[in-house]
Amino acid sequence: MSAKIETIRHSLAHIMAYAVQELYPGAKFGIGPAIENGFYYDFELSVPLAPEDLLKIEKKMRELLAQNIVFKKQKLTRTVLVRMFKKQPYKLELLKEIKQPTIYESGTFVDLCSGPHVKSTKEITPDAFKLTKIAGAYWKGSEKNKMLTRIYGVAFAIKKELEDFLKIQEEAEKRDHRIIGKNLDLFVFSDLVGKGLPLFTEKGSIIRRELERFVVDEEIKRGYKHVYTPELAKVELYKTSGHYPYYKDSMYPVMKIDEEELILRPMTCPHHFQLYASKPRSYKELPFRIAELAKQFRYEKSGELTGLIRVRSFCLADAHIICQKEKAMDEINGVLDLIEYMALKLGLKAGVNYRYRLSLGDRKDSKKYFKDNEAWNFAEGVLRNVLTKRGKDNFFEAQKEAAFYGPKIDIQMKNFAGKEDTAFTIQYDFVMPKRFKLSYIDQDGKEKEPIVIHRSSIGAIERTMAFLLEHYAGALPLWLSPVQCMIIPIADRHNQYAEKIRDELNFLRIEINNGNETVSKRIREGELQKVPYLIVVGDKEAESGKISVRERGRGDIGAMELSKFTEKVKMEKDA
Amino acid sequence: MSAKIETIRHSLAHIMAYAVQELYPGAKFGIGPAIENGFYYDFELSVPLAPEDLLKIEKKMRELLAQNIVFKKQKLTRTVLVRMFKKQPYKLELLKEIKQPTIYESGTFVDLCSGPHVKSTKEITPDAFKLTKIAGAYWKGSEKNKMLTRIYGVAFAIKKELEDFLKIQEEAEKRDHRIIGKNLDLFVFSDLVGKGLPLFTEKGSIIRRELERFVVDEEIKRGYKHVYTPELAKVELYKTSGHYPYYKDSMYPVMKIDEEELILRPMTCPHHFQLYASKPRSYKELPFRIAELAKQFRYEKSGELTGLIRVRSFCLADAHIICQKEKAMDEINGVLDLIEYMALKLGLKAGVNYRYRLSLGDRKDSKKYFKDNEAWNFAEGVLRNVLTKRGKDNFFEAQKEAAFYGPKIDIQMKNFAGKEDTAFTIQYDFVMPKRFKLSYIDQDGKEKEPIVIHRSSIGAIERTMAFLLEHYAGALPLWLSPVQCMIIPIADRHNQYAEKIRDELNFLRIEINNGNETVSKRIREGELQKVPYLIVVGDKEAESGKISVRERGRGDIGAMELSKFTEKVKMEKDA
Repeated sequence: MSAKIETIRHSLAHIMAYAVQELYPGAKFGIGPAIENGFYYDFELSVPLAPEDLLKIEKKMRELLAQNIVFKKQKLTRTVLVRMFKKQPYKLELLKEIKQPTIYESGTFVDLCSGPHVKSTKEITPDAFKLTKIAGAYWKGSEKNKMLTRIYGVAFAIKKELEDFLKIQEEAEKRDHRIIGKNLDLFVFSDLVGKGLPLFTEKGSIIRRELERFVVDEEIKRGYKHVYTPELAKVELYKTSGHYPYYKDSMYPVMKIDEEELILRPMTCPHHFQLYASKPRSYKELPFRIAELAKQFRYEKSGELTGLIRVRSFCLADAHIICQKEKAMDEINGVLDLIEYMALKLGLKAGVNYRYRLSLGDRKDSKKYFKDNEAWNFAEGVLRNVLTKRGKDNFFEAQKEAAFYGPKIDIQMKNFAGKEDTAFTIQYDFVMPKRFKLSYIDQDGKEKEPIVIHRSSIGAIERTMAFLLEHYAGALPLWLSPVQCMIIPIADRHNQYAEKIRDELNFLRIEINNGNETVSKRIREGELQKVPYLIVVGDKEAESGKISVRERGRGDIGAMELSKFTEKVKMEKDA
Repeated sequence: MSAKIETIRHSLAHIMAYAVQELYPGAKFGIGPAIENGFYYDFELSVPLAPEDLLKIEKKMRELLAQNIVFKKQKLTRTVLVRMFKKQPYKLELLKEIKQPTIYESGTFVDLCSGPHVKSTKEITPDAFKLTKIAGAYWKGSEKNKMLTRIYGVAFAIKKELEDFLKIQEEAEKRDHRIIGKNLDLFVFSDLVGKGLPLFTEKGSIIRRELERFVVDEEIKRGYKHVYTPELAKVELYKTSGHYPYYKDSMYPVMKIDEEELILRPMTCPHHFQLYASKPRSYKELPFRIAELAKQFRYEKSGELTGLIRVRSFCLADAHIICQKEKAMDEINGVLDLIEYMALKLGLKAGVNYRYRLSLGDRKDSKKYFKDNEAWNFAEGVLRNVLTKRGKDNFFEAQKEAAFYGPKIDIQMKNFAGKEDTAFTIQYDFVMPKRFKLSYIDQDGKEKEPIVIHRSSIGAIERTMAFLLEHYAGALPLWLSPVQCMIIPIADRHNQYAEKIRDELNFLRIEINNGNETVSKRIREGELQKVPYLIVVGDKEAESGKISVRERGRGDIGAMELSKFTEKVKMEKDA
């Protein structure tokens, strides 16, 4: 039986260190664990490494692997170990912290390590690993310590797996929304503004506005009250909701103004509850669906900030449905209808691009989950029922993934490589109505307590943009494309005709590219900018009153009447 | 010659105190100055006052006025004064602070006062004043001191002026946007959210969204890049702009996050400059017009917060035009075109509802105004030129009203009573480009410095909403009305026909009012809600396929074909 892949990765870290020991005498060693898809090792070297050095180290590693080196574990006295690592300050530091130190010997490389490792390098496929990256890393992750050189590698059981992985990686890099965002001029960051706070350019703002208006218009059509509430509120509001004590570390610092303590909001629900509770409500007003394009502010560690995916301020397509618990099933069904409709408009299908996760509570854990067995049973039953009726194949259940105040449905979105992440959720909440004393007067004249459904429809606008840019590798659907059509006049004398075409296509966002470059260069420019349609006009077109069209992904689709093009594009836009 | 109105008002304050002394023996006196339109006096009384007590005091005042009481000024020694006011602790306190105390005697009322006063009450028209309000007021305005009873009065030279004033006051109260906002359910405040932070309800949000989309769409049409930038940034950004030291007291407190000091933005310009400066710019990209619906945060004293007019967080229709100084004239002209177009859509005309103020600098004051005579001369010349060409009647000049960084045009909006206030401004700025090192590569390949025009197009959305609600007394133009048409089915059997009409009028925001109330009560409800069109449908209408229409402000306009109504309303909506 072959060794576990983690063991292989860890052993490769040692072999890499062995190679470094051979190639860079005097190197000092930090730590070298297995990680997702591979391994790394931290070194203190007297020379900086260049990318080509990785090939040299890889070559040396393969020589070592071919020697069928055996990994031997030993337990030695602390005195012997201190002597053995006397030139390795990092190992000596670690030694102090380890209660029962053991070492692993592989050839002439000895490491302080508890294993496990492969028996011998025979178990490692020499062409199923690759060194990928050099990075700086502080010893023990602290800025106060020395910066070491970290070498990353990826490793798999067989060569085919490595190849597949590298292919996906390559694709992922091409699709990285941060790179696309830069190439297509969609958003920027500024040192003077701050970390995790994107500034959207004109083009990025077009995408964002299209998404936002789409959300607002569709939600209003479906009976949501779309509101505006403040981005900040008194800390007291989040104490009432119960969020503050649990959530404090993800919130911004408190701002004291006069006698008030204000804080940027990390969520919208208590704001919406204040609107609901601003006057007495009747059963006739339920379901009360309040939606908002809600700016939210959360502290994220600077190391975790990633383009538009993880930011410190974002805009959530948020909503809260306040209704009788008997109506919860219908409402959640309606939410799923909405989500699926919107996803479809974005080109994403349930069961293909995403699926649902029913996240359940735990009756035995009343610290993590509000204690009310009956309410949990009812709520979980409602969610399961809705999901089952909509088709068993598109959802799965997960234990102990619920929110404090009730079970939820997570929308698990798959990226281009099939990796699944929670994009946003629908939560059934039977706790907040109590905390905020939400109520309605029922048909029988009695005051009753409603339940709340927290939901998004497309998630955070920033994250959705990032997802779509990666999903489409920048080639967004027509309605979301910042420039929908580029008109390229062959020569200056065709400018007028180009302008005439532009005016007739005034339902599209159009750019006329009449720069000094050659036509083919301007076409290439339009293609790089992922413009859905390029229209080239010259003498022939001006005379015949036609246009020559290039469609993104299809290339030249020939000359056509403007009216025919209009018809085609309108249909695509409204699809 | 009659006394100055301020003197009359101040003397009336004394006469009121005299009346209180007679009616409430043992009263202790605070201060009693003249104020805009009238006067007040603060008293410590052993009994609380009711509104009807004001009539009693007024009556007593008129009796005193009829006695032709003479005001006599005297200078006495401090020892005498201390004895004289021994039962008046507030006067004794004031006495300590006054260097050369004098008193005024009028009848048996003696006050510590430096005057001036009327010679005798003969100079005061007894029916040209009125006591208006009782309020609590802390002694010397500090919460640490005792709360006194303040009585307000208004006073004029002649009765007609008082009557006119009271009429406008009455109208102002009816038009108060806070009251309209409550009656029409447009926005609320919440103690748990905080002061000066409005929450917009569904209906208020409709008005806001209509305004916002109107701004964005129109500005994009006119070549603005509409962007989104963060609501907060590093303090450093506002130090670079030079705003921080001057503006600190109006800003929110600093929030420390990791090693960054962040602050909610009080203005948008430095954010837009960061977008401009994110890459090198060519002269071909100018004029670079960046616009945003920009959330801004400013600290306002809690006593100054007023509905939507003065808030602690607002959304400014903001923009910055970066251009060559030679293009400034064209750009400012374009801004005025835009402002006038938008104002007209809101029903406001230049010269009637608003006019322009050209706010100039002062070459001698280089502390308040950036020192650069040439730049000031040029910029003021540009603004004066533009305004003069557009018509001399719509503008006036004001010395020493400019911004630090250049002259500006203020849009002076008149409210229903003719009172003029600055709604927003257009500023010519030759300082910020230096501070942010903004530049462009000109046609000759050289790097040059542009100028910046800061401008709004309709001001802050919140304040514009407040203004429009007061201007129209809640009866907003059709396109801004939250409910544009209310359909009232006479009986339940007409519901179906009502729904059919609603579906055909799907370009309008429609409410079907099929409550249990009588038709006339429901019509009244629609009128109170300022709904532009009420459609009543019963047997007659269902049979004939027509509708009966009531138009806001006109009443019943009779039965008509649905198609005719559609035509009429569409025309009004798109006007």
